[in-house]
Amino acid sequence: MNTEQINEIVKKVTQEIIANYGGGVTYSASADFAPASLAAYIDHTLLKPESSIEEVRKICDEAKKHKFASVCVNPSYIRFVASQLEGSGVTPCCVIGFPFGTHTPEAKKFEAQEAIQNGAKELDMVINIGAVKSNDWQLVKRDIQAVVEAAKGKAGVKVIIETALLTDEEKVKACAVSKIAGADFVKTCTGFAGGGATVEDIELMRKTVGPEMGVKASGGVRTYETAVKMIKAGANRLGATAGIAIISGPEDGNTCPCLQCGACSAQCPTGNCSISKVSY
Amino acid sequence: MNTEQINEIVKKVTQEIIANYGGGVTYSASADFAPASLAAYIDHTLLKPESSIEEVRKICDEAKKHKFASVCVNPSYIRFVASQLEGSGVTPCCVIGFPFGTHTPEAKKFEAQEAIQNGAKELDMVINIGAVKSNDWQLVKRDIQAVVEAAKGKAGVKVIIETALLTDEEKVKACAVSKIAGADFVKTCTGFAGGGATVEDIELMRKTVGPEMGVKASGGVRTYETAVKMIKAGANRLGATAGIAIISGPEDGNTCPCLQCGACSAQCPTGNCSISKVSY
Repeated sequence: MNTEQINEIVKKVTQEIIANYGGGVTYSASADFAPASLAAYIDHTLLKPESSIEEVRKICDEAKKHKFASVCVNPSYIRFVASQLEGSGVTPCCVIGFPFGTHTPEAKKFEAQEAIQNGAKELDMVINIGAVKSNDWQLVKRDIQAVVEAAKGKAGVKVIIETALLTDEEKVKACAVSKIAGADFVKTCTGFAGGGATVEDIELMRKTVGPEMGVKASGGVRTYETAVKMIKAGANRLGATAGIAIISGPEDGNTCPCLQCGACSAQCPTGNCSISKVSY
Repeated sequence: MNTEQINEIVKKVTQEIIANYGGGVTYSASADFAPASLAAYIDHTLLKPESSIEEVRKICDEAKKHKFASVCVNPSYIRFVASQLEGSGVTPCCVIGFPFGTHTPEAKKFEAQEAIQNGAKELDMVINIGAVKSNDWQLVKRDIQAVVEAAKGKAGVKVIIETALLTDEEKVKACAVSKIAGADFVKTCTGFAGGGATVEDIELMRKTVGPEMGVKASGGVRTYETAVKMIKAGANRLGATAGIAIISGPEDGNTCPCLQCGACSAQCPTGNCSISKVSY
């Protein structure tokens, strides 16, 4: 498939989606919204670069206890995570080209192969956002395909399109190219570029990829209420550091009281509040 | 060299540095502070993931015009940058494991080899911050060595220690290990984890590595005045997106008037103000 053919398909899909968008949600999850049942949707996530191995061990223990879908970590911890999760039914998930996606297709492929060797069963790769902005869809596709090929038969591939940095048209195109390239999921955000998952973006992504591909909401999904909204909008996976808060169900008032410690970083240093860059 | 030996050396260096710190700056740059002469210190930098190829072309043109030391970009643009800079005397510089440093040593080595093949003459790699926080100095060293080995005789290696996330003791240890591992420079920040270069950190890093290794100040270096402060503190290279403002010399008042647009991200969306995460 050459660049022209890709452009043709993407153009067609984009026109269809944009034309129909706003006509209501066509995807309707027949989901069970009992709080504990949400555990099966959650990728229990720890990606801040300063995470220690003890913090990673902790989220593995939590994931096993609560039966989360996966534990999602950076490449240098995936071998440890795979060993911790062995036999638990919780999937080891590794990010690739994270969080900028500015690596070459070959480097992402190398990272993917190595992560799989180290035990990863799911790979969350970041799209080449610069290629999107340069309108180089051939590179966007080749980049995703490099990871899909490395993962074939061994691991599922989710494509993080980093919604906060894209226009609606770019979001649709990025989802369409992810589907063409053979990925299993599209995913909203890294959580490190501002923004976060929105109901509107999940609806748009679900409309673009259809009912059979996965849609993962990530970035700012911190409460039971938000999690349910995302699933209703079409998400069938949730990326969150606040998985335990989510499966604790609805709460009155603020579930994450901010201590006003003033030392905010990518994650609350006090551990009392689950935050993302968008929150401060 | 085994872990115990590394720990012993690092402990010794740390004790010496911490004991002597505060006794005044021993390194004194005999620098020429004419604004235009600062160009030779500047790595003209564009690392935001949404940068388009046209934006990259622009900074290459600027670097050639003003004779900056290098153009520093993400891996997927380094081949283009090397072709743009050919014969200009401006060095193509590529970041490795950027911005989290959470890749494996093998992945960083692969990235480094590929960047060199694509024309990089300098590599700015991010340290494994999680390994620092896990007190796994053997991994920290192996990680740096992997890139140093790939670069040997072909490219210089700078190690970004991400000062904003480290304690003073960790900064000293990270610098000592970078030196042991054979890197050419230590560098303060990625610019994407909060914080930025400070006079105190540059002094501490210079004291740790001695006069012969390079020290690069990056993160928040946006004016002539700050640039001069960093050089006086011991920096012999500056990473900046605001290179042109720096070589324009001192200005009265605020050189970057904020428009209060409220849409801050990693870089000012209006282009009217050079900001970093620390500024908002």
